Amino acid sequence: MTTVGIVGAGQLARMLALAGLPLGQRFVMLDPAPDACGAVLGEHLCFNFDDGEALDLLASRCDVVTYEFENVPAGAMARLAERVQVYPNPQALAISRDRLTEKTLFGELGIPVPPFAAIESLEDLQRAVATLGLPAVLKTRTLGYDGKGQFILRSREDLDAAWAQLGRAPLVLERFVPFDREISMIAVRGRDGSTVFYPVTENVHRDGILRVSRCKPDDPMQDRSQDYARRLLDRLDYVGVLALELFCVGPELMANEMAPRVHNSGHWTIEGAQTSQFENHLRAITGLPLGATSAVGHAAMVNFISNSPAQADILAIPDTHLHLYDKTSRAGRKVGHATIRATSGTALESSVAQLQKLVHQSAIDKIPDVIV
Amino acid sequence: MTTVGIVGAGQLARMLALAGLPLGQRFVMLDPAPDACGAVLGEHLCFNFDDGEALDLLASRCDVVTYEFENVPAGAMARLAERVQVYPNPQALAISRDRLTEKTLFGELGIPVPPFAAIESLEDLQRAVATLGLPAVLKTRTLGYDGKGQFILRSREDLDAAWAQLGRAPLVLERFVPFDREISMIAVRGRDGSTVFYPVTENVHRDGILRVSRCKPDDPMQDRSQDYARRLLDRLDYVGVLALELFCVGPELMANEMAPRVHNSGHWTIEGAQTSQFENHLRAITGLPLGATSAVGHAAMVNFISNSPAQADILAIPDTHLHLYDKTSRAGRKVGHATIRATSGTALESSVAQLQKLVHQSAIDKIPDVIV
Repeated sequence: MTTVGIVGAGQLARMLALAGLPLGQRFVMLDPAPDACGAVLGEHLCFNFDDGEALDLLASRCDVVTYEFENVPAGAMARLAERVQVYPNPQALAISRDRLTEKTLFGELGIPVPPFAAIESLEDLQRAVATLGLPAVLKTRTLGYDGKGQFILRSREDLDAAWAQLGRAPLVLERFVPFDREISMIAVRGRDGSTVFYPVTENVHRDGILRVSRCKPDDPMQDRSQDYARRLLDRLDYVGVLALELFCVGPELMANEMAPRVHNSGHWTIEGAQTSQFENHLRAITGLPLGATSAVGHAAMVNFISNSPAQADILAIPDTHLHLYDKTSRAGRKVGHATIRATSGTALESSVAQLQKLVHQSAIDKIPDVIV
Repeated sequence: MTTVGIVGAGQLARMLALAGLPLGQRFVMLDPAPDACGAVLGEHLCFNFDDGEALDLLASRCDVVTYEFENVPAGAMARLAERVQVYPNPQALAISRDRLTEKTLFGELGIPVPPFAAIESLEDLQRAVATLGLPAVLKTRTLGYDGKGQFILRSREDLDAAWAQLGRAPLVLERFVPFDREISMIAVRGRDGSTVFYPVTENVHRDGILRVSRCKPDDPMQDRSQDYARRLLDRLDYVGVLALELFCVGPELMANEMAPRVHNSGHWTIEGAQTSQFENHLRAITGLPLGATSAVGHAAMVNFISNSPAQADILAIPDTHLHLYDKTSRAGRKVGHATIRATSGTALESSVAQLQKLVHQSAIDKIPDVIV
């Protein structure tokens, strides 16, 4: 019996536990939220992430510890890593939580990225805009997700407002890339260095939040995105699932960012792949053989943001698999998703369209264009 | 948010909860065993099944109650049914827990059964053997499962021993049917009377315990077994999953028994069908639309009895999906299963053979031929 610790007990921890319980694993989760939605699936240590005693308790209870979000305090990870095996290793976490070190690593490994500049003052920002041009995106180096901590600069008039909003934190400016598509590569590396890669996922974001992902088994960018992900896995001596988000710009492929964890764009793998990203992450970190990543049928995922349509309406759509996270409604919050796994591309798109219509009809709010 | 109560918290409750949590359901389980393996997935009411206060607590906590085994005390079900909606209804439970009333119902509905006789004395047994012939199987009317409560009569010399072993309980004698195959039909009926049926499952038992099940989408007995199951569903005003076990005897199809619950022979549906039996049972009892039952690839299930091989060895076999129940090893106990879902029949059988070899190599015990 292997006990897996998870820092965080949100929906990613929940889906990890749902995948790991059938493998005979048990879970202990650290999360200060009393109603954390993953905590029902294991032992819940309801303490702050920087609570030393709670971290030591987590370490003592588990054979291995992983995490479901990047913004774990660095000191917490160091303390855990002294006491128990932590995967993916804290170095991967430290790099990915800072957009600047992440982009620098991409560059070192020959992975193309949109032009960028580190910003520490309004003067830096003015100079960088002069060099990189507009539109551009100003982002906090750390703690950003789902479009938060970002400001899109469309004209020089936006600079002061952007600086006023984000200037307290270290920043990075990125040239806005007029991409044709956004894709992600979900990659897995085992303790023994073996690797597997899922089919390319094509993603549709709106207002900085992922809305729809589609599995693309014959995507022309499969090999290149896989090659980039492999460079990262090997350099970081990585163990677990790594998600690499990329922009397709004409014939070019440019890395946007990576996440050292299971990722929203890989949720379709629960039904749409032979082995889900959640199971493969757990297989990797517990030293089990990795599972096949091949597609099962035609698959897509639709996110439920803020709220979700009625269950009966969702389940009446053919080939639909529901995943509610048991979270209360709140603007911009991911409360669930549905995977559609169909026997043809036509059936898939028909169900995706029906589901999107439902989502639109039941929407309780409009997400503002820029969320900080 | 729907809360589902389950009487029993064994592996069937565990797999129900694993299927229901993603639907946004919560679970409360009544089971006197402190280490009941399903209880980690919900609230555990650790009381005896006939504890009136515990039953009332269960009823008050839940929107609907179901059960994972037939041998719930009848009084307990009646008490529950007065306070909360119970599915499948207690009438179906009462009939299926008594082999005599079950066989009588089969007969009334025109569903063929092997010749049988009710036995209440040694004289009854002697008369019935004279009429039905040998070999025959003497079974307790209630409380039998996995070959327990059965005695195979091969010659007249066996009668006294059989009577000595089983004679304290009401019995039924069945002519032993020299069947070619054992199959089961997993059927589902919703609250609105809608029905869906899984592809025929072909089962291999050894020593009274199910060992291997295979999904047979083009089985010649599909229509007839489906028709028999539908008669039962409609007569019983049934809601939920019903499993009907049948013998194929030449061109004949004869019912063996039914189970008013999710069933071991339907475990392959977790990966091998568009919607699993567990999810469809929950959809049915909570009034949600039923899900598609079509096969996904080629699927089979191998049971782990008494103990299970090492996880890494199981997962190294292609296309294998592991389901451990987190139960300690014990002779004759079901501790887990694996589903193999392959893209061809050849690949399926290759993996099944590898898995069976593993099971054989790691077996810690031999199950005696007759278990009472």
